[in-house]
Amino acid sequence: MAQTNRRLILRARPKGLLAPGDLQLVESPVPTIADGQALAKVKYLSIDPTMRVWMSVDSYLPVVPLGEVMRAAGLAEVVESRHKKFKKGKKVLGLTGLQEYCVIDAADKRGSFRKVPPIPFLSDTAFLGVLGVTGATAYFGMMDIAKPQKGETLVVSAAAGATGSIAGQIGKIHGCRVVGIAGGAEKCKWITEELGFDAAIDYKQPDWKEKLAAATPKGVDIDYENVGGEIMHEVVQRMNLHGRIVLCGLISGYTKEDPALESFATILRKRLRVQGFIVLDYLDRFMEAATQLGKWKMFGKLKDRETIVEGIEKAPEAINMLFTGENIGKLIVKV
Amino acid sequence: MAQTNRRLILRARPKGLLAPGDLQLVESPVPTIADGQALAKVKYLSIDPTMRVWMSVDSYLPVVPLGEVMRAAGLAEVVESRHKKFKKGKKVLGLTGLQEYCVIDAADKRGSFRKVPPIPFLSDTAFLGVLGVTGATAYFGMMDIAKPQKGETLVVSAAAGATGSIAGQIGKIHGCRVVGIAGGAEKCKWITEELGFDAAIDYKQPDWKEKLAAATPKGVDIDYENVGGEIMHEVVQRMNLHGRIVLCGLISGYTKEDPALESFATILRKRLRVQGFIVLDYLDRFMEAATQLGKWKMFGKLKDRETIVEGIEKAPEAINMLFTGENIGKLIVKV
Repeated sequence: MAQTNRRLILRARPKGLLAPGDLQLVESPVPTIADGQALAKVKYLSIDPTMRVWMSVDSYLPVVPLGEVMRAAGLAEVVESRHKKFKKGKKVLGLTGLQEYCVIDAADKRGSFRKVPPIPFLSDTAFLGVLGVTGATAYFGMMDIAKPQKGETLVVSAAAGATGSIAGQIGKIHGCRVVGIAGGAEKCKWITEELGFDAAIDYKQPDWKEKLAAATPKGVDIDYENVGGEIMHEVVQRMNLHGRIVLCGLISGYTKEDPALESFATILRKRLRVQGFIVLDYLDRFMEAATQLGKWKMFGKLKDRETIVEGIEKAPEAINMLFTGENIGKLIVKV
Repeated sequence: MAQTNRRLILRARPKGLLAPGDLQLVESPVPTIADGQALAKVKYLSIDPTMRVWMSVDSYLPVVPLGEVMRAAGLAEVVESRHKKFKKGKKVLGLTGLQEYCVIDAADKRGSFRKVPPIPFLSDTAFLGVLGVTGATAYFGMMDIAKPQKGETLVVSAAAGATGSIAGQIGKIHGCRVVGIAGGAEKCKWITEELGFDAAIDYKQPDWKEKLAAATPKGVDIDYENVGGEIMHEVVQRMNLHGRIVLCGLISGYTKEDPALESFATILRKRLRVQGFIVLDYLDRFMEAATQLGKWKMFGKLKDRETIVEGIEKAPEAINMLFTGENIGKLIVKV
């Protein structure tokens, strides 16, 4: 074949936004395929914030090596096949990379390619968005993690984005008051007038924090977080007791260094669960704790130690001992 | 009665450590009781880090008003009673305050007082520590939130404290590798030699970060966090996929301003759950998402929008559009 395959090669790890040359467009011959392979022509490429992470650091996927085609999800059509599963003419979804032609290999055990389901009335591109990865992200984040209840208040950041716009609508379907945070009047108009969000906060307006407060009079029960930084901080301050934060994205930190985001970035990348916790919530079950702890103590599995300070007048000093690290074990004042 | 009641009155909100005069020792007459009340003589007072929070800000309990007796938990003995439940001679636990005598009032619906259970072989003070609030904190934090599994690695900060020392031992009881972080050789020796922790990291040593790494060769599955700040940051960086952080205390921030701690302080105070989340973990269930989203879309409950950029050579600019906020809905490159 005389055709060429135009491909975008990662040449440098971007600082901040991509600069010209970070991704270099090169022309290569269209690959020839072997047994067990299929050649597919890429039709559509999904552009996602996570790609910026793939360019810079190891995350849930390894960083893209310099000199290789940039990783991307896409929709492609098989144009030549020596692969049992993917026949000529079939449309497929998978990590095509930023290129015009990709090879599907049966030996690729990661199985990143799958056929586009033949569903009528749907455009193919729906499988890159609402029925694809970004839709699934909104779906599982809301259904499995946020578990929205009727009457709760949900705040979604990057609310006009591919994931946020779906997450907010799932909140509406479940009877939540939904407030979206987005940048600019057009996005705010779209999410309220078209998508039915109860309110939209334009974070580019100077009074957005006051407007967020006014739009969440009963506080916030669920934060579907896509942004991080100052926006997340503000939403977190308005959270109600026992609220849930679905840490889905931290786009504010993808193009700049932000040390305050570092712990949250790790929490996201490693899918950690952080649970704030105060024992008073367990007051009804204190006897259970005392009984079990008492048993362990009696059988020598648990040891404790007390630091006892004598005299009520020493209590102020005793409080300071906690912070200067002078006590070991339980600190008690004997009156 | 000619006796006096020595009491510590909160006079000023401390900056950093308590300064002389923040708590003022005053002598008042011992209160006389009315029907439905009992007078108790305080024997022991529990000294806890949370008291420093109570002095400064509204948290899970309201801030202590200036001019009032400082709030504290204690163990007291009833010396005079006109209260049905608490007879003379009974020992009680509750929020006695930092004073020598306290009044127990039947009208106090918060029911903060309870009798000391009559358990042999146990000192009364055990009910302020290992079988009291700090023990219960360790118990519920470990059993309900961390859910330790055999072979997992648990890191406990403030590991020689009243709660940390119990949390670590509960980890050992459940077959975890337990690493404690504490300040100074004596504490480190106690938690390893007496309590059976597998390793202790003295954070006052300059090479504590390297030692933490060496002590957690398989990473960290559970962080029982009592400290926050730099110590928490270091542990979080070593967490394994799907790890759990029990956010129990942030003592490093109680005596100084630390803006980086602010979001975590709110997460703790409001008992929020933060779940980092990446949709690839749900790969097996993608059809469930697509099916439900497809139904909602078909019935008009879900709308989506695409921003389509034409030409693979535009992909680098398209990636930047995500961060400059130029796209609405799903961003796609048509090849």
